[in-house]
Amino acid sequence: MQYDKILLGHGSGGKLSHQLIDELILPYFSNKTLKELNDAAVLDYSGQKMVFSTDSYVVDPIEFPGGDIGKIAVCGTVNDISMMGAKPLFLSVGFIIEEGLPLETLRRILASMHKAAEEAGIQIVTGDTKVVPNGAADKLFINTAGIGVPYTKNIPSGGRAEIGDQIIINGPIAEHGITVMASREGLAMDLALQTDSAPLNGLVEKIMTVSENIHVLRDPTRGGIATTLNEIARQSSVGIRIDENQVPIAPAVASACEILGLDPLYIANEGKMLVICSLDDTHRVLETMRAHKYGRESRIIGSVLKEPKNRVFLKTVIGGQRVIDMLTGEQLPRIC
Amino acid sequence: MQYDKILLGHGSGGKLSHQLIDELILPYFSNKTLKELNDAAVLDYSGQKMVFSTDSYVVDPIEFPGGDIGKIAVCGTVNDISMMGAKPLFLSVGFIIEEGLPLETLRRILASMHKAAEEAGIQIVTGDTKVVPNGAADKLFINTAGIGVPYTKNIPSGGRAEIGDQIIINGPIAEHGITVMASREGLAMDLALQTDSAPLNGLVEKIMTVSENIHVLRDPTRGGIATTLNEIARQSSVGIRIDENQVPIAPAVASACEILGLDPLYIANEGKMLVICSLDDTHRVLETMRAHKYGRESRIIGSVLKEPKNRVFLKTVIGGQRVIDMLTGEQLPRIC
Repeated sequence: MQYDKILLGHGSGGKLSHQLIDELILPYFSNKTLKELNDAAVLDYSGQKMVFSTDSYVVDPIEFPGGDIGKIAVCGTVNDISMMGAKPLFLSVGFIIEEGLPLETLRRILASMHKAAEEAGIQIVTGDTKVVPNGAADKLFINTAGIGVPYTKNIPSGGRAEIGDQIIINGPIAEHGITVMASREGLAMDLALQTDSAPLNGLVEKIMTVSENIHVLRDPTRGGIATTLNEIARQSSVGIRIDENQVPIAPAVASACEILGLDPLYIANEGKMLVICSLDDTHRVLETMRAHKYGRESRIIGSVLKEPKNRVFLKTVIGGQRVIDMLTGEQLPRIC
Repeated sequence: MQYDKILLGHGSGGKLSHQLIDELILPYFSNKTLKELNDAAVLDYSGQKMVFSTDSYVVDPIEFPGGDIGKIAVCGTVNDISMMGAKPLFLSVGFIIEEGLPLETLRRILASMHKAAEEAGIQIVTGDTKVVPNGAADKLFINTAGIGVPYTKNIPSGGRAEIGDQIIINGPIAEHGITVMASREGLAMDLALQTDSAPLNGLVEKIMTVSENIHVLRDPTRGGIATTLNEIARQSSVGIRIDENQVPIAPAVASACEILGLDPLYIANEGKMLVICSLDDTHRVLETMRAHKYGRESRIIGSVLKEPKNRVFLKTVIGGQRVIDMLTGEQLPRIC
């Protein structure tokens, strides 16, 4: 590591995060499961496959148009489990609350978690609450961990993208990150922005009924689709081409990105997923996705190529090509 | 709730914590598993019983004699699973790091987690790292969640204490809380204090080989043995009598409690457990515990009575009796 202190960028989900995890954390916890670095671990539990995942949520502000820290804490872990082609069953919740948080705020966030858990059909079965003195944390942090059961033996993984595969996304990008960012500036309402936070397990369940061999499922959260696609390209040792014309983005989000000087490809999503499957499966998967409420605007945005290995490039609107690297540094701290 | 804001006492593990959980949190997450309010949930996973637990750690300072936040984050969840009479198998870890934390500090804590996980024989299989700007959190918070497999069908529970049962503790109390507290005052070294933080799964495994029907296992962390025994008395609708003469406490801890004006019965432990079993099993269990390195000083400290229901009372050294209530308010914030 070139630094002797933790930087904000170490939490970005991008290059510095990868460096921190690869060089500092993994050496202490090295085991086969953790090394795979997917959104969740696949374990053997008494002869049964099991999926296990965790995330902490530190988003600021804790409430924003379309959601709050509670909703993303439930949906985020539900989605991480779903991305392993698994049905989320149980959730744990750990609250770290700053002394002085209004009970009314906590109540709203609990109600929102309850609603999200109900929609996802997941049970919150165990929890923990810590309170820290005023100033020792910022309002509220939530950790969730979840357990799920795989639908199929062919567990999707970032390392399974194959040459010729098609890349589908279930709708417009960058909505979560830009909403949170604009909320901080007091602009989210004016710009009519709203987080895309949603539980994707229902959509994944549908996909799993029409294909038994989805190669990759990933939710492009921190670092956006650019970072997630780079991870996949490296894990699978393939090239990935994205067609800028095909990447869906809402006009309001596009303008907000311009106003705030941000590249939507690097902005976090909380209700989007990338599906990578064989050309043969693509049509069926796409039709199935479009029939689901969280997949109406699904579209093929690119494909998997042999070269250039480990790289993502964008065919731009004007016909050029540019390499899309992983996020470096921290574009948006505390986005989830 | 009589308050409109979160108070420090809501995180104490005592009365206010119970009120917060019962009145505010549980109504939103109500399900049978969560309502049992044990240290961990017992779930049905594809026809197999499974134990699932989580805790967040916010201890201040993050390093103290005999341990650090990483050690207690691993041991705490290992112990919560063990208290269900289960073997801990897998752990998830979520870090919330304050920008500016020295990498050397993080490295020491990771090494300590690695060592604790190795001793406990548990695998850390999935994780998450968030970084928040300077001032938005205090140095480092860690959440762990864990999965375990029960040793027996007779799962110990706070609600299973029976009249006539004996209450055993595996060693001297109050060492963790007083060490952390004295560390804050710069006194821990001078007073030769050290946390008792330890993974108790090995000790539990031994106990499970000599009794198939341990009624209650609980680790008295936040709120100390007084709070944990009160919880058990209420869950089982029994009375509990503790003999003050029999409660082990190290002389250094006793003096530190006097100096700091704290009651050791209410002080957190991180390597202690209360075992409640039938009179018939007591001798075998006690002998087994004493043969283990974390049980050498095991002792019977009391028994379960019919009356007074839901109450804990102490037979004092001078022969009197006093009721020991649950911790009210917050004696020691950020103790674990």
